[in-house]
Amino acid sequence: MSRFLTVGAAQMGPIQRSHSRRDVVERLIAHLREAKRMGCELVVFPELTLTTFFPRWWMTDQAEIDSFFEQEMPSNETAPLFTEAKRLSMGFCLGYAELANENGRVRRFNTSILVERGGQIVCKYRKVHLPGHAEHEPERPFQHLEKRYFEVGNLGFPVFKAFGGNMGMCICNDRRWPETYRVMGLQNVEMVLLGYNTPLHNAPSPDHDEHSWFHNQLSMQAGAYQNGTWVVGVAKGGNEEGVPSLADSMIVAPSGKVVARAGGEADELVVHRCDLDAGQSYKRTTFNFAVHRQPDQYRLIVERKGALDP
Amino acid sequence: MSRFLTVGAAQMGPIQRSHSRRDVVERLIAHLREAKRMGCELVVFPELTLTTFFPRWWMTDQAEIDSFFEQEMPSNETAPLFTEAKRLSMGFCLGYAELANENGRVRRFNTSILVERGGQIVCKYRKVHLPGHAEHEPERPFQHLEKRYFEVGNLGFPVFKAFGGNMGMCICNDRRWPETYRVMGLQNVEMVLLGYNTPLHNAPSPDHDEHSWFHNQLSMQAGAYQNGTWVVGVAKGGNEEGVPSLADSMIVAPSGKVVARAGGEADELVVHRCDLDAGQSYKRTTFNFAVHRQPDQYRLIVERKGALDP
Repeated sequence: MSRFLTVGAAQMGPIQRSHSRRDVVERLIAHLREAKRMGCELVVFPELTLTTFFPRWWMTDQAEIDSFFEQEMPSNETAPLFTEAKRLSMGFCLGYAELANENGRVRRFNTSILVERGGQIVCKYRKVHLPGHAEHEPERPFQHLEKRYFEVGNLGFPVFKAFGGNMGMCICNDRRWPETYRVMGLQNVEMVLLGYNTPLHNAPSPDHDEHSWFHNQLSMQAGAYQNGTWVVGVAKGGNEEGVPSLADSMIVAPSGKVVARAGGEADELVVHRCDLDAGQSYKRTTFNFAVHRQPDQYRLIVERKGALDP
Repeated sequence: MSRFLTVGAAQMGPIQRSHSRRDVVERLIAHLREAKRMGCELVVFPELTLTTFFPRWWMTDQAEIDSFFEQEMPSNETAPLFTEAKRLSMGFCLGYAELANENGRVRRFNTSILVERGGQIVCKYRKVHLPGHAEHEPERPFQHLEKRYFEVGNLGFPVFKAFGGNMGMCICNDRRWPETYRVMGLQNVEMVLLGYNTPLHNAPSPDHDEHSWFHNQLSMQAGAYQNGTWVVGVAKGGNEEGVPSLADSMIVAPSGKVVARAGGEADELVVHRCDLDAGQSYKRTTFNFAVHRQPDQYRLIVERKGALDP
């Protein structure tokens, strides 16, 4: 049996601070139209798609910080994206900074949403693995203040039936953590939609810089194979406000093989016709969890947060 | 700081049923001597090193089955390995089928031991992820009856201070499961010693056969990177009793990069001088578990065994 879903990984080139949301939405709509022409039913945009990657700056003025957040979705500025997607009958996954009001409390998350072909938001995810730091570290060439500007996501790793399959989402640094994929794998995820912004330079461990592309690919390939799922990894690329970032968007099959990838660092659409049943042979044999997993032996994974010497 | 440990991955060519333990131990001793000459302090042998990979056969005569198991370690037949290792002042890791008597009950495990340079066994591991099946499946070209002949290991994934570092062990199919590495990573493992026997043909999913080498490498690379640990993967290779197996022994650095690997399918020693501190930059930054992990979000990993649809 085959269940095909044609997906577009819509890589974005740099989004500078001077670019308005309107500018960005125009580029997203161009992606949608190109994707439609290429037969896509679902387009995946990167993490924090609507603005420049602002956690690179130390800011203390809350109004300035909040200017990078969305207070409603869709908003006046993002509505044209929803309208065009609906007109084209295309779904999309969009990452953005979310300012939420929950029980009278303002909360800020690094969020992605899955939007069905009719324009309705059917699933929301809030980033769990926030990288970086919370305090100003002026010795860095640029900051990575996700731990300051966002709270840890409070929606788990939801998997949702949409687009004919079991769809999951995660964001950027989540992809390096096998727990991310496994929690979705245990919900029979068939396709993980994953946007990222990854600076090529990692200040605390510059010796890792040369491996950036390798680590990105390795993490997604392992997550795909070990859970028998597609992974659609979508980057921002190019030099954004002086910070070069990874690009290398790719679509990884449940075998772990990369089947499509971006060639450049600018706006670029990477398309693949994915058989959502392709993971079944992994889920039924090598990674038949019900037959082979031994959760009693995994307790340390939830009982211990940090590593301790034996 | 650097803490160097020179390790030899002692790949074994086929071990046929006609080969006695004495034959095999002679080959292991040849490995030890070559390893000594190349400066090794620790040699890692494959899974079930002392006999042919017997789970490929359906057997009903318990005496025949037990002929592949070790009732003591060292035994008369394996003592010369311990003696030679002690004489050379070399440690080793050895996989074998263990027949144990626990509280008056006979138990059988797929086991590996870590032996210090003085000849003492300092750590034992019993395989947790037994692959294959428990009943006769005559439609297969060969069986994979680990679930019949062995019990699931009952010693967890221990990490032990030895050879100047934190040493862990796992066996064959364990390496495909990120939980294996993570449980050891949470104990600050710095080097995982891992023997395997992997047939190139997987009867239930023959479409995976072409990816065998890729999946082997991917699993070990991801486990290494995501926990900042060395992984020493040691295979049996070649055609054993009509069944071709994987070979491709390799040593993977904490960066996830393969730094040494076997070129052939026969007895072959792969050596690398490993800096046990090489994983520190991963453990302190990207994979600083205490700072970045979110165990509350991982509960499904221990609360659910098999996958369920959302």
